[in-house]
Amino acid sequence: LSSLPLFPRVALLGVGYIGGSAVLAARQAGLVGHVVGYDVSPSAGVVGQQKGVLDASASTLAEAVRDANLVLLAAPVRSLETLLRDLGKGLPPHAIVIDVGSVKSDVVAAAEAFLPAGQFVGCHPMAGAEFCGVESAEAGIFAGRVCFLCPPSHVEPRAMHAAQAFWAGIGCRVIAIDPQTHDRLMAAQSHLPHVAAYALAGALSPSLSFLDSTTSEASPTTSLRDTTRIAASSPAVWRDIFLANAENLLPLIEELEINVREIKAAVAKGDAAELESLLAKGQFARQRLVKA
Amino acid sequence: LSSLPLFPRVALLGVGYIGGSAVLAARQAGLVGHVVGYDVSPSAGVVGQQKGVLDASASTLAEAVRDANLVLLAAPVRSLETLLRDLGKGLPPHAIVIDVGSVKSDVVAAAEAFLPAGQFVGCHPMAGAEFCGVESAEAGIFAGRVCFLCPPSHVEPRAMHAAQAFWAGIGCRVIAIDPQTHDRLMAAQSHLPHVAAYALAGALSPSLSFLDSTTSEASPTTSLRDTTRIAASSPAVWRDIFLANAENLLPLIEELEINVREIKAAVAKGDAAELESLLAKGQFARQRLVKA
Repeated sequence: LSSLPLFPRVALLGVGYIGGSAVLAARQAGLVGHVVGYDVSPSAGVVGQQKGVLDASASTLAEAVRDANLVLLAAPVRSLETLLRDLGKGLPPHAIVIDVGSVKSDVVAAAEAFLPAGQFVGCHPMAGAEFCGVESAEAGIFAGRVCFLCPPSHVEPRAMHAAQAFWAGIGCRVIAIDPQTHDRLMAAQSHLPHVAAYALAGALSPSLSFLDSTTSEASPTTSLRDTTRIAASSPAVWRDIFLANAENLLPLIEELEINVREIKAAVAKGDAAELESLLAKGQFARQRLVKA
Repeated sequence: LSSLPLFPRVALLGVGYIGGSAVLAARQAGLVGHVVGYDVSPSAGVVGQQKGVLDASASTLAEAVRDANLVLLAAPVRSLETLLRDLGKGLPPHAIVIDVGSVKSDVVAAAEAFLPAGQFVGCHPMAGAEFCGVESAEAGIFAGRVCFLCPPSHVEPRAMHAAQAFWAGIGCRVIAIDPQTHDRLMAAQSHLPHVAAYALAGALSPSLSFLDSTTSEASPTTSLRDTTRIAASSPAVWRDIFLANAENLLPLIEELEINVREIKAAVAKGDAAELESLLAKGQFARQRLVKA
């Protein structure tokens, strides 16, 4: 006799890379039973079943969440508010709702507004976002990664325990943090680096044909590879993240623009002392940002 | 009876990380015999001998290059012109002169102006520049890396053969390229990524105390690690590189500034379509820049 999984019936709302990977990992860990998916794109449901993520695909939200013990919101960040509003109408009274979004203040506020009190915990597993689509889902991406938990003020302890059990069960290191601090932290540690990578790659757009014609033999430098790696991420995903976290991100983009402009001015003037001091500021910050 | 090394007597001018590493690698490959070092800092000569890079340390340039078959210029980029001028006065007639600088047009022009015709080949081994000081020298950093050779117009074939033999002998993949194309290529592939990394790390300077207070548990994201890695590089080294390659680099920094400003404006306006299109431009460029 095998024991019942912690979450016998799961609804996956938004069938993509992160949600699909989380379900695959939870299946491997024996945490979940029957998983029903719902996605605005019907083909995601089909691929999700082929990939072994879903047992069934629902054609409505209400059908997907009926009887669910756990609702995993894994749709794009900008669709979460609408999804939470709709979810508030038919949520089973004992279901726990968790999400995977990279920005937390808005979704926690929307959950407080639209869901019965206490059933929601905002979650942010820090696992690769360069890929998209459930067809790329991989169970292994969560092992050893941090997952932030951002509970609303009136969370029920059983909701926190469930969220903790889910993410720790698939290998995450779980850290509770308030949503505002989370979003400010992510603006600095993740969102601004993405802005820089996209801007750097974009700045090399006009050089692409020159580079194509000269780099047949010379492979790209590791500098270029590392600094632009995350510019390979989905534009739609990061558009939503930047917009959802605009309040925290904008002052940092402003700082980035200023730093670029100051380096440009020092190079243009040939001001060696000023240039070295700007670069030393960056080196010092890097050493503090990434210790050891 | 052991055979004579290809370069029985070597002068290393500028005893630092790259030059020291190249000599260590050349010793392992049996390419060099007696190596005399010369550096403006006397302590570099002492450490160079302790580290096994140098057999002897000279107190003047003339003493260092007397009887040399190979002169390896590995001093900071901005000191190369003066060094070449001084070198022109006492260079043994059969010595081959090579360098390791990251920018090539200026040094090739200076060599044409100050050295006897044909003895110089500009060289740029693409091996790690994050460290500095001969105490960090490592023989293994050249294996599999590209080394660009930028010959002046009147190079002697024996100089090209010697440069080729040296770098290929320590494991580099040697690629000949004209100095102007090299500098334009490096501005895009290496120098602009360094500007972006320094500017990004610098932009996070004002956030350091907030980050220190919140990240005791959460380690920095891989995004932040990768995008700022090269900001750990020596400010003095990169100040010189940026200034030496200002002509090629400035238009690219300008492009970077424009791209940052456009992303900022789209986020500020909440213009989702414009923002996605800017990010898609970056993603497309990244995919062309770093294939596979």
